[in-house]
Amino acid sequence: MNDTFLRACRGEKTEYTPVWFMRQAGRYLPEYQSVRGKVTFLELCHNPELCTEVTLQPIDIFGFDAAILFSDILIPMEAMNLHLEFSEGKGPVFRDPVRSRKAVDDLIVPDPDETMPFVMETIRLLRKELKVPLIGFSGAPFTLATYLVEGGSSKVFLETKKMMFQKPQLFDAMMSKITDCTSLYLQAQARAGAQALQIFDSWAGILAPVDFKRFALPYVQSIINDLRKVTDVPIIYFANNGATLLDLSKTSGADVLGLDWRVNIKDAIDRVGNHAVQGNLDPIALFLPKEELEERIKKLLDDAQGARGHIFNLGHGIVPQTPPDQAKIAVDAVHRFSGK
Amino acid sequence: MNDTFLRACRGEKTEYTPVWFMRQAGRYLPEYQSVRGKVTFLELCHNPELCTEVTLQPIDIFGFDAAILFSDILIPMEAMNLHLEFSEGKGPVFRDPVRSRKAVDDLIVPDPDETMPFVMETIRLLRKELKVPLIGFSGAPFTLATYLVEGGSSKVFLETKKMMFQKPQLFDAMMSKITDCTSLYLQAQARAGAQALQIFDSWAGILAPVDFKRFALPYVQSIINDLRKVTDVPIIYFANNGATLLDLSKTSGADVLGLDWRVNIKDAIDRVGNHAVQGNLDPIALFLPKEELEERIKKLLDDAQGARGHIFNLGHGIVPQTPPDQAKIAVDAVHRFSGK
Repeated sequence: MNDTFLRACRGEKTEYTPVWFMRQAGRYLPEYQSVRGKVTFLELCHNPELCTEVTLQPIDIFGFDAAILFSDILIPMEAMNLHLEFSEGKGPVFRDPVRSRKAVDDLIVPDPDETMPFVMETIRLLRKELKVPLIGFSGAPFTLATYLVEGGSSKVFLETKKMMFQKPQLFDAMMSKITDCTSLYLQAQARAGAQALQIFDSWAGILAPVDFKRFALPYVQSIINDLRKVTDVPIIYFANNGATLLDLSKTSGADVLGLDWRVNIKDAIDRVGNHAVQGNLDPIALFLPKEELEERIKKLLDDAQGARGHIFNLGHGIVPQTPPDQAKIAVDAVHRFSGK
Repeated sequence: MNDTFLRACRGEKTEYTPVWFMRQAGRYLPEYQSVRGKVTFLELCHNPELCTEVTLQPIDIFGFDAAILFSDILIPMEAMNLHLEFSEGKGPVFRDPVRSRKAVDDLIVPDPDETMPFVMETIRLLRKELKVPLIGFSGAPFTLATYLVEGGSSKVFLETKKMMFQKPQLFDAMMSKITDCTSLYLQAQARAGAQALQIFDSWAGILAPVDFKRFALPYVQSIINDLRKVTDVPIIYFANNGATLLDLSKTSGADVLGLDWRVNIKDAIDRVGNHAVQGNLDPIALFLPKEELEERIKKLLDDAQGARGHIFNLGHGIVPQTPPDQAKIAVDAVHRFSGK
């Protein structure tokens, strides 16, 4: 068992810098496309055997130091009693956006083992196969809330912020339910065998610090607080586009803070002190010519020297157009330059 | 003549904090909608009388301390020999994205007075009417380049970054032409009577600092350097979502740095030292109930006390759904709390 990733999360010494990529099991891989060609995205998410297969693909191909459960952050929202669709091009769509007291009251806090057995089964299957740690994950409550309230993706998140600003009690009631759901969901993943947990706050970066502190962070803290009572797996919190939120994010309770590519990793490390960090190559830097890509990776590793722990990752998900050969160059470079 | 805005830009003492809003002449105003109902967006941009009318509307209605020329950052791109359309819902579309050597070679550096006389005429008409300073503007070269290369708006800006990373010479050649065009365009605006100039780098925030420094900032510096030789109007540089770029942005040569709402204004002021700042209320905070909106504005004004100069603004454009009454509350609050 290669536990380099787990040790880096905990700030323990490692022989080299572990690396994995957000969305490493995904559309840039022909092997993934071939599985995905046979089923819809939601069918794939609901199928433990296929989820296991696509989760393993990038580990076998590139030698990543951690696997991440193949799923989608919105899967537990289905279990909360919402109708979710993924349409080509448009992304996720909730047929009935959550904007009223009735809609919030109708949300269910589901038992994750009962309503999402396919996720727990995927974790169990993966643990039998994997020789690297398995990361479970969820969306952060605020990010999940944006999808529920907007009914899908958004540009300015008007409806979400309007609810925050004009109906804070309703917003809090919704967030409490999402938080309970997420908390139970992550606990179930840990019980099923997830060895680390990442909380994706993909849309935290649309909030001013004052609003992040009031409307997003407390719910993350609550989830992590709950988790600490029942598991000691490392917890990663990734607030995307969150450079101005770092001073707050470091109070989340997470062991590791994920960094997007907009922040210089050295500056971030200076600010988050006693936390390990994960990141933060611009995903599109993978399109650089080999030599320049390697140079950039070397620089990033050097800049991260002062961290309590560093897990190399992209600053956001790998884009579908990325040539797999370029991913290979990057993974190999991280390993070689960091002493593997 | 109310020159409070100009004095704040220059870091001189003012009796109160001047305020204007990005997109203040825009869709949230019924008076604008009424003009816009009769013509297409591009027809409006090309018509000096109508541009003058819509520019004046928010000044008359709200008592803003500065007017900004009604136009679009992509107008000079038409003059560079590109076919531009605005489609409802999809935003701007360039029929033939610029991605090849031939496409770059085909770009023209236009004479702004000859190709965009309607802009200069608008400025002259406005100067006859206005009792507050008139701001001219342009897009920053990098932001303009993203539209040219992507052919419109984008989510991850893959084509732009691919060109940067894989064909840096071609990218630089394109940027040089856009820079020359922009430089001449802003100079012409100053000659026509613009009393301040804002450079909008709406998409700077998609760049890692290292790439901003290499691919975006030098072109802004070049434009400002050119401007300084021919005019002493204050220059505002707004790198949207640019909190991690502030240390670089302060070397742009601008007098004023625009701040989006993601950064705490006090932190930003600590970092940019000898610059005036402009910003930075979350545009959607205008949906707060009156009392809370006023409280937030008071806090922002307090936080900005240490600035060399502060021009109150939103952290991005006002959204079309904003009730005009809320804009009025905000403008009045800025004036009242800052001592007008």
